[in-house]
Amino acid sequence: MSHRIPTPSVPAPDIVRCAYMEIVVTDLARSREFYVDVLGLHVTEENDDAIYLRSLEEFIHHNLVLRKGPVAAVAAFAYRVKSPTEVDVAEAYYRELGCRTERRAEGFTKGVGDSVRVEDPLGFPYEFFYDVEHVERLTQRYDLYSAGELVRLDHFNQVTPDVPRGRAYLEDLGFRVSEDIQDSDGVTYAVWMHRKQTVHDTALTGGNGPRMHHVAFATHEKHNIIQICDKMGALRISDRIERGPGRHGVSNAFYLYILDPDGHRIEIYCQDYYTGDPDNPTITWDVHDNQRRDWWGNAVVPSWYTEASLVLDLDGNPQPVTERDERSEQAVTVGADGFSYTRRDDGGAPAEGFKLGTQL
Amino acid sequence: MSHRIPTPSVPAPDIVRCAYMEIVVTDLARSREFYVDVLGLHVTEENDDAIYLRSLEEFIHHNLVLRKGPVAAVAAFAYRVKSPTEVDVAEAYYRELGCRTERRAEGFTKGVGDSVRVEDPLGFPYEFFYDVEHVERLTQRYDLYSAGELVRLDHFNQVTPDVPRGRAYLEDLGFRVSEDIQDSDGVTYAVWMHRKQTVHDTALTGGNGPRMHHVAFATHEKHNIIQICDKMGALRISDRIERGPGRHGVSNAFYLYILDPDGHRIEIYCQDYYTGDPDNPTITWDVHDNQRRDWWGNAVVPSWYTEASLVLDLDGNPQPVTERDERSEQAVTVGADGFSYTRRDDGGAPAEGFKLGTQL
Amino acid sequence: MSHRIPTPSVPAPDIVRCAYMEIVVTDLARSREFYVDVLGLHVTEENDDAIYLRSLEEFIHHNLVLRKGPVAAVAAFAYRVKSPTEVDVAEAYYRELGCRTERRAEGFTKGVGDSVRVEDPLGFPYEFFYDVEHVERLTQRYDLYSAGELVRLDHFNQVTPDVPRGRAYLEDLGFRVSEDIQDSDGVTYAVWMHRKQTVHDTALTGGNGPRMHHVAFATHEKHNIIQICDKMGALRISDRIERGPGRHGVSNAFYLYILDPDGHRIEIYCQDYYTGDPDNPTITWDVHDNQRRDWWGNAVVPSWYTEASLVLDLDGNPQPVTERDERSEQAVTVGADGFSYTRRDDGGAPAEGFKLGTQL
Amino acid sequence: MSHRIPTPSVPAPDIVRCAYMEIVVTDLARSREFYVDVLGLHVTEENDDAIYLRSLEEFIHHNLVLRKGPVAAVAAFAYRVKSPTEVDVAEAYYRELGCRTERRAEGFTKGVGDSVRVEDPLGFPYEFFYDVEHVERLTQRYDLYSAGELVRLDHFNQVTPDVPRGRAYLEDLGFRVSEDIQDSDGVTYAVWMHRKQTVHDTALTGGNGPRMHHVAFATHEKHNIIQICDKMGALRISDRIERGPGRHGVSNAFYLYILDPDGHRIEIYCQDYYTGDPDNPTITWDVHDNQRRDWWGNAVVPSWYTEASLVLDLDGNPQPVTERDERSEQAVTVGADGFSYTRRDDGGAPAEGFKLGTQL
Repeated sequence: MSHRIPTPSVPAPDIVRCAYMEIVVTDLARSREFYVDVLGLHVTEENDDAIYLRSLEEFIHHNLVLRKGPVAAVAAFAYRVKSPTEVDVAEAYYRELGCRTERRAEGFTKGVGDSVRVEDPLGFPYEFFYDVEHVERLTQRYDLYSAGELVRLDHFNQVTPDVPRGRAYLEDLGFRVSEDIQDSDGVTYAVWMHRKQTVHDTALTGGNGPRMHHVAFATHEKHNIIQICDKMGALRISDRIERGPGRHGVSNAFYLYILDPDGHRIEIYCQDYYTGDPDNPTITWDVHDNQRRDWWGNAVVPSWYTEASLVLDLDGNPQPVTERDERSEQAVTVGADGFSYTRRDDGGAPAEGFKLGTQL
Repeated sequence: MSHRIPTPSVPAPDIVRCAYMEIVVTDLARSREFYVDVLGLHVTEENDDAIYLRSLEEFIHHNLVLRKGPVAAVAAFAYRVKSPTEVDVAEAYYRELGCRTERRAEGFTKGVGDSVRVEDPLGFPYEFFYDVEHVERLTQRYDLYSAGELVRLDHFNQVTPDVPRGRAYLEDLGFRVSEDIQDSDGVTYAVWMHRKQTVHDTALTGGNGPRMHHVAFATHEKHNIIQICDKMGALRISDRIERGPGRHGVSNAFYLYILDPDGHRIEIYCQDYYTGDPDNPTITWDVHDNQRRDWWGNAVVPSWYTEASLVLDLDGNPQPVTERDERSEQAVTVGADGFSYTRRDDGGAPAEGFKLGTQL
Repeated sequence: MSHRIPTPSVPAPDIVRCAYMEIVVTDLARSREFYVDVLGLHVTEENDDAIYLRSLEEFIHHNLVLRKGPVAAVAAFAYRVKSPTEVDVAEAYYRELGCRTERRAEGFTKGVGDSVRVEDPLGFPYEFFYDVEHVERLTQRYDLYSAGELVRLDHFNQVTPDVPRGRAYLEDLGFRVSEDIQDSDGVTYAVWMHRKQTVHDTALTGGNGPRMHHVAFATHEKHNIIQICDKMGALRISDRIERGPGRHGVSNAFYLYILDPDGHRIEIYCQDYYTGDPDNPTITWDVHDNQRRDWWGNAVVPSWYTEASLVLDLDGNPQPVTERDERSEQAVTVGADGFSYTRRDDGGAPAEGFKLGTQL
Repeated sequence: MSHRIPTPSVPAPDIVRCAYMEIVVTDLARSREFYVDVLGLHVTEENDDAIYLRSLEEFIHHNLVLRKGPVAAVAAFAYRVKSPTEVDVAEAYYRELGCRTERRAEGFTKGVGDSVRVEDPLGFPYEFFYDVEHVERLTQRYDLYSAGELVRLDHFNQVTPDVPRGRAYLEDLGFRVSEDIQDSDGVTYAVWMHRKQTVHDTALTGGNGPRMHHVAFATHEKHNIIQICDKMGALRISDRIERGPGRHGVSNAFYLYILDPDGHRIEIYCQDYYTGDPDNPTITWDVHDNQRRDWWGNAVVPSWYTEASLVLDLDGNPQPVTERDERSEQAVTVGADGFSYTRRDDGGAPAEGFKLGTQL
């Protein structure tokens, strides 16, 4: 499957940013408790089948749709394009790629108008739209500001077996690479790509896919993320804190990974950097660098490498998952088979990517 | 050795607070780099043999003495008492206990006057003093304020085999218990004890001892601790970050544990709570509570349970280490032999004290 | 009135800390909105006449009592003493001083037992108690933690005409001075005094009195105080932000002063320093130092100098207010009659205590 | 002078962002002390005539040039364009506008290549460039991270007499309006305009001009700004803190204004919001809204309205300043002649834009 995805002769749609994700949850009430009561996302609209949520500073109808369904999965990665006509451009682009597309003038979700959804060459359900209902931007509603307030949707993260293949496809689509992880043999393990002026709108993580690795929301400051941990402790759901908090090497953001009731992974994220210049320097990390994933060298938990959410086709059926046949980042960096280093010059000590403090 | 330490007939000295620790380091220059260049402690005075350091808000001569020596160890846990005569009281108290004592009118370190050092019943070198040189309190020297500034010495932590025995001895000495960790059989694994109005001036951790587990400095805010991690990452010494940052269950403080060049453990700590009322409620944690050591359920690394610093007798020779014969906290809570729970009511899942996310 | 208050022959009560204030409000519903909905204090108990509130980390029944009444005023400054017998000691102490006292075995407020209230020599209604109902300490209830959470009662501030007279009286009562403001003629304008190990449990501010200048609650971090301002802006009550936020010169705390619906002044305060050593250095500020009240040199608003709350006698009638006959701090430091300096060595420029930026 | 500036027939240059400002200072050593020792900007290069400074996360040669000269003024507002050819586009654009232009293939400052400088229709010295020397991006150099670290250049602010005229010109140039301040008669007092995805790259403030009101640098968090105030207090230069810190109504950013040794105004700024969507909602504030300039209703100091820096023509001579003939924001909102309101519905009380607390 690693043949290159052809570059269409027609122009790519002008994408503004990642705008919302639609996820299928198996128990809407439990999910509401997690996203509204625990995380404090703001409800724009809800009914028996779906809840439409937005972050504090958002002015479009939603950043996240929770839809009730039989199988936990992701129904859409939705991007906003620059104008109504760019939806036509997107439809034509994917048709030339031979992808299945579906156009709906009235949109696929409440609050969104004319949209096209596609099964993209990597097997992900992508949506492109411009028309959207504006809602109250809560930026200065400090009377609603919680201690762990989520202020923006920041990015998506997708798991795919062949990262260079996915990267070339997304570069054709207009995404620009900010950072990646490689090894000295040129194997690429992950890549971060953006349209808006942050480190990413989406990232590709090498692994069995297509699957959704996580969706990320931004906070203003680091203490807001710490409060989310503290609150999950108080609610005795600390076992839903999967990884972090910590400082990423890649992106330099302060981060936290938590799991929703269906196991969908949410990242809470803040303070990456500006990438808007055309010659923004791309950073390549060595897969063996022990600080690439966590700047403090804290271990990446196994589940973070292996677990991810299924994604749906346009009929709502889970896409089959293809195994990655290249080396896995976990295998080359953790445990007896792999190694990592904290200092490039010290022969890779401490061995096995563990801190001295954590060697067994 | 678990016979109770007798309560002297003479009064106990009136202790104000933990005041400084004297540690022996094997390479003074490397230690200076760590404590001054990395951590930003302020040098009051130094020579070829020793460096005297203090935290930003301290007004006595030092909180930490680094002394050059052949074996990394702790030479003294020094407490300040309420008046000069309390030094006499301390000397008499330990004499009645049959402990070896040494009195020096000129003090054992620069900047400190009349003091007594003792080999206490638990085998620790304790010092008691009142006379001390006042130095500039740097509280408002924001021109010297680093992003990870350490503002106060907060507490000591001592490893001893028999925690209840040590607790009774320290209660006789006037310490009051704020929190402890026990199991349903009444085994005590650790205890936190204070004189000043914080959670502790010292704590006892069950294990092979006498050894020094850590010495802790306080910051003003949580971001100051995060900066210390970020800086250690920038300096490529993240492998010296042993555990954290995290939120303690016990004490509720935000914490970080790092290791100095000799492996002496330093805690960076902030925001515990007021304990000054005579009836301050004592909190007892269940050893199986997965949030007792880290409120977010993050794993305690093995080295944190097993490694600690030797302590010296009054001749400067390391005290022999006695094994703990009771159950170890690590054994009863981690791995196949032990268990922990996040929610008391769910049968202890996730098993083995690991998060779902970290099960192998 | 400036004769010295005699030192009683009997011992002074052993005071632990400032514990709660009872204030009379004219509209209980409006006050509840301010203290509960805006500031987020936690309701322990309430009825048609009174609301009992506490801060997050408090374990006694309340830190603040709002009682409905015809005239906005302060009914009690309540201190906790070290044991039940200290209430007897307090009663005897004030009787020897010839003060009116009232003892109530069942207490003056819900949740508090045997107490004595006195009309003290300065005209303030002081209460002393030990017996109190313990309630849930919410320290780790991060599910209740608001973005502007108040975690502790920190101190009282009292307005009195003759500061040195009041200072001598409070020193006899066992308070210790941490800081004060004087001029070169030895006039004292204000003094900060403590029992617990912070900068103060109460302060005396020179002015027409007896009146209550403010009661202060502590937050964990500076951003919590900023959130309170942001929230008051969102609620369009920014005109109730009287002064700040800023950094105090005296105490070094980060501060904010706001006004409740009756004009009672509340300070929000964080990060002063440890004062528990017997020889804690006392800091004297020059009244002309432009950074004494605000370390950044921001102007003190006139109302802060002139406005304060009435206090009640034991019959519930307002105490008459006596004019200060010494110079006022405002007069000697603000405007054409006074001066302040930013740098002692530059002849007092900028003139009149204003920044260059704010000269008219 | 209020005739509309014609829209050129040729395309406008594609501007990426505000990139650097060149300012003339009268004492290079004193200015270095302020920008390097106090503010911690990083020196890329320096000589006897000029110092080239950058913020932590910058990868181009500089964000600020300090050049020694006889008269304190601004020599250039420099914007980065999207490609080398856009410099030609800019040159042609201003030529058609009849503006004086100067092209230099080797650039006007070290580290910058082919550039064009123009005397724009408002009288400001604008520069456009693409070619620039890349330098080390210090994003993860936490070993260099100061407690008040400046991480990005955020925006310029220009004083001009006729705001609508300037706004139309900048909209033709491709800037988009995020927010403005008007009154019910349609008078515009200020406007915020952006190219990058923040609230502004430059703003126009109504007043006598052309003058430079301020240049702004961003920090990561609010406490970084507070530290700058604290440090200026410690250095006894609090009189150089002109206004703030506070929360802006417009932009929602947390802010501080300080004055350099020549009186050039620097803003320290953090946490405005994303503006990258094509239909980003524009916010219009009522000039009488007391929270528009400071969300907490704190007073704007007179100097902030009246003082600003001269700007230079291409020969290095100060541009003559034209008086604003429309109403001034200060006049209509402050003092006896003007009014402001905190709540629109309460008849504008408190009167005169002062808080109750600050009424005289």
